[in-house]
Amino acid sequence: MELTETRLDRKDIFDGRVVQVHVDTVRLPNGKTSTREVVDHPGGVAVVAIDEADNVLLVRQYRYVFSRELDEIPAGKLERGEDPREAALRELREETGAIPGEFIPMGSLYASPGCYGEVLHLYLARGLTLGEQSLDENEFLNVLRVPFDEMVRRVMSGEIADAKTVAGILKAKVLLNR
Amino acid sequence: MELTETRLDRKDIFDGRVVQVHVDTVRLPNGKTSTREVVDHPGGVAVVAIDEADNVLLVRQYRYVFSRELDEIPAGKLERGEDPREAALRELREETGAIPGEFIPMGSLYASPGCYGEVLHLYLARGLTLGEQSLDENEFLNVLRVPFDEMVRRVMSGEIADAKTVAGILKAKVLLNR
Repeated sequence: MELTETRLDRKDIFDGRVVQVHVDTVRLPNGKTSTREVVDHPGGVAVVAIDEADNVLLVRQYRYVFSRELDEIPAGKLERGEDPREAALRELREETGAIPGEFIPMGSLYASPGCYGEVLHLYLARGLTLGEQSLDENEFLNVLRVPFDEMVRRVMSGEIADAKTVAGILKAKVLLNR
Repeated sequence: MELTETRLDRKDIFDGRVVQVHVDTVRLPNGKTSTREVVDHPGGVAVVAIDEADNVLLVRQYRYVFSRELDEIPAGKLERGEDPREAALRELREETGAIPGEFIPMGSLYASPGCYGEVLHLYLARGLTLGEQSLDENEFLNVLRVPFDEMVRRVMSGEIADAKTVAGILKAKVLLNR
């Protein structure tokens, strides 16, 4: 079956600090037209960082969208033109103070490819040297340390539901043959 | 550190077929104000379906947001008031024709909790009976079958980047002790 959709028109809806929204009119493979709601996002980075005692570094943040605190691996948005590896090292250092001796790419994630344009780059960090956090004035989070095997248990039980944390922990498990 | 953010104001931006966007003014833990861009989504379901020959059923679709075809596990949006388990069985049947003998919940995923309100419910399906696809008139996809171990390889190599597919395949791997 032929699958390609072709843009016929674009209507810009919202130009936010983080996301941009547009609604496009497209031609479907059967020649009919439909609309596609597109939420563009600058892209992100996230790091599974494991310390010398085999703990995973997590950040606990209030996630306004869900009106609750979530425990997630350290992560952040790409700044304009920023290299994903540099961004991931920056976010890890700012949020947790950690500087890794070993830093391994674990591929990318499309968060929700139906409407949402976010691509997130995943890394594995080991050999951590711990320095000082440097949070923005308006950034609030607590750093936690959870043993790796306990993180796998929380991912499998559904206690951890953040997609990048689920994917990151399980990719690390396979990569490290744990 | 106290983390909670409190809503002070809400401005509705966009009420789409799939997503709704609003920008809220919030009070931060330090008493200052900031804004939060929120993209609401009806929620979704996705199914890792494994046939008797140990193949995973995939759907190849054109993902307009990324201007390319992606291979993903069968998935779809929740309809209003729909039970996630029923929705997952419906999407699996509509997209692939498969009806499972065994259907196991594998937890939920927050696709991107910074801005995006999507919660996706994951299931594992086995003991498949294969019937007829029933696609919507304007739905275009091809069904593929890929051996389970080959799917794990594609996830780990980064060839598969769709977050629900990465998380679903690796959760199934752990659950099935593969």
